[in-house]
Amino acid sequence: MPDVVPLLRSAPAHELAARLRQEDRLALSRMISAVEAGRSDARRELRHLFALGGKAHVVGITGPPGSGKSTLTTALAKAYRARGETVGVVAVDPSSPFTGGAILGDRIRMMELHDDPGVFVRSMATRGLTGGLARSTMDVVALLDAFGKDVIVVETVGVGQDEVEIARTADSTIVVGVPGLGDHIQSIKAGVLEIADILVVNKADLPGAQQVVNDLRAMLSLGATRTPGWTPPIQETVATTARGIPELVKQIDAHVQFLKDSGSWRARRAENARRQVLGILEDHVRSAFERTIRSETWEARFRNIAARTEDPYAVADELLREVALGDDNE
Amino acid sequence: MPDVVPLLRSAPAHELAARLRQEDRLALSRMISAVEAGRSDARRELRHLFALGGKAHVVGITGPPGSGKSTLTTALAKAYRARGETVGVVAVDPSSPFTGGAILGDRIRMMELHDDPGVFVRSMATRGLTGGLARSTMDVVALLDAFGKDVIVVETVGVGQDEVEIARTADSTIVVGVPGLGDHIQSIKAGVLEIADILVVNKADLPGAQQVVNDLRAMLSLGATRTPGWTPPIQETVATTARGIPELVKQIDAHVQFLKDSGSWRARRAENARRQVLGILEDHVRSAFERTIRSETWEARFRNIAARTEDPYAVADELLREVALGDDNE
Repeated sequence: MPDVVPLLRSAPAHELAARLRQEDRLALSRMISAVEAGRSDARRELRHLFALGGKAHVVGITGPPGSGKSTLTTALAKAYRARGETVGVVAVDPSSPFTGGAILGDRIRMMELHDDPGVFVRSMATRGLTGGLARSTMDVVALLDAFGKDVIVVETVGVGQDEVEIARTADSTIVVGVPGLGDHIQSIKAGVLEIADILVVNKADLPGAQQVVNDLRAMLSLGATRTPGWTPPIQETVATTARGIPELVKQIDAHVQFLKDSGSWRARRAENARRQVLGILEDHVRSAFERTIRSETWEARFRNIAARTEDPYAVADELLREVALGDDNE
Repeated sequence: MPDVVPLLRSAPAHELAARLRQEDRLALSRMISAVEAGRSDARRELRHLFALGGKAHVVGITGPPGSGKSTLTTALAKAYRARGETVGVVAVDPSSPFTGGAILGDRIRMMELHDDPGVFVRSMATRGLTGGLARSTMDVVALLDAFGKDVIVVETVGVGQDEVEIARTADSTIVVGVPGLGDHIQSIKAGVLEIADILVVNKADLPGAQQVVNDLRAMLSLGATRTPGWTPPIQETVATTARGIPELVKQIDAHVQFLKDSGSWRARRAENARRQVLGILEDHVRSAFERTIRSETWEARFRNIAARTEDPYAVADELLREVALGDDNE
């Protein structure tokens, strides 16, 4: 009975892709794992699946640890579900050595979404990925998009430049602030304001929320905003009770409408494509490099650098040439 | 009087390099800025200067925000000065949008070192660098090394994978923990223990210090250590009063001695050379890419990706080929 074999982890990628297109969740999950593991058949299928996407609305959410991003993501997913849209969630965990555990704890709060077949949640950690986090995240978004999700929420912990960059590659980027964390390390700085399409002050029932709103408003009036003609609205929310969530959904809708009406939509997607190509390129160079240097010849060159008989720039030039010429298209 | 013109910011790099070799601090400072700005003459001189280095002992220090790394670095620098060694300090500020301000504040504490001509302090931020932070940090270390510094301390805030990686590329890596920050986000996780050669529990006069020591000891007994045969010692310090600093200097000396006696020294330096070459390569690809795509042809390709008529992987492959073939050696 070859037709009823279960979907094995080792199933060929073309089978996974075909089933994914028929909204088979297990196939989606296995396909994501296969792409993350760098399976070459999965990479090939990904290229074909890419053409099916482009329909989903991608929402990026970033903010400091403790700002309630996971709860906000969960509340947002429910709001979209309530109006009949399907949702994909990509929860990016940078596995920072200092933050790893706490963030995984937050993920548990998202588990209430798991009962809804219209929501697909995927957590991503740096460890175990063959490529960089940014490129891998974009791959997962492309797969959720091809699967047919209407909205894809990408949540990152904004502790490093990388994570902020990931949130930036969305159609609408939400930056979350929160009262009470003090401004020692956790307040929103000007740099992250520049990527915000919408600002959220979560935990707005805590003392100091109005102050955060006022501070953000003052900072907005000083700095350049991301899209000419669009001033990021500041939305107060209490994600745990869904206060402000319907209003936030409306703000996101309004942002999308603005982008489309103003012609910025296509420009932003082209800009994201540029970033995606760069990510792929860097991953490609890195993996080609890792393959190439597994030889005694190159090991000797690194020892030469350590002994200062060669300089690292000259060796890098040579290696780049070898990688480019020996390119086997992976 | 052409011979007595002051050292201008625009001075040619060969002049800066020559003066740097005569221990001219202003020339060192200008040379670092020229390399960071990506001046091609400075890059060329850097290659030559690289051959002069390899003598300095590089100490990496990383830990969570608030663990007193800057104070520890200052105390360590003073201890090395007290025994007659010259010191370079590279304070890496990742300019995380959420942490930027606070870290610059910490730097102020280092200012007491500025009066000592035997110490050279350089702060590095992500913004304004033409290359990645890791490569740029290694460039500054190479310049301090060529300048003749005996010890170079590289301090990073361990909030992201990148910063931890930078601290790792040292001869001796110190990971700093501290009591009282709770384990919500700021405690030391297993991942960062793997890179530690020496563990420091700073602010050891605070309640809970012994608990941190015990926890670290327990974690050490479970996980793999970085260098076979070397168990990272745990040193308690109070950096503000220099308590434990002489002992820490001895631990660092012992670590270097162990590496040299066991033959691990050269292996580690070769491994660091490998990382350095990878960093250079990635920067090179990124900048070549940035140059190449500034054309309407490529802009059209990105719009094609956004419109899903091309896939980003195919475009990346083509771009890699163009970058490799059009390589003008920067």
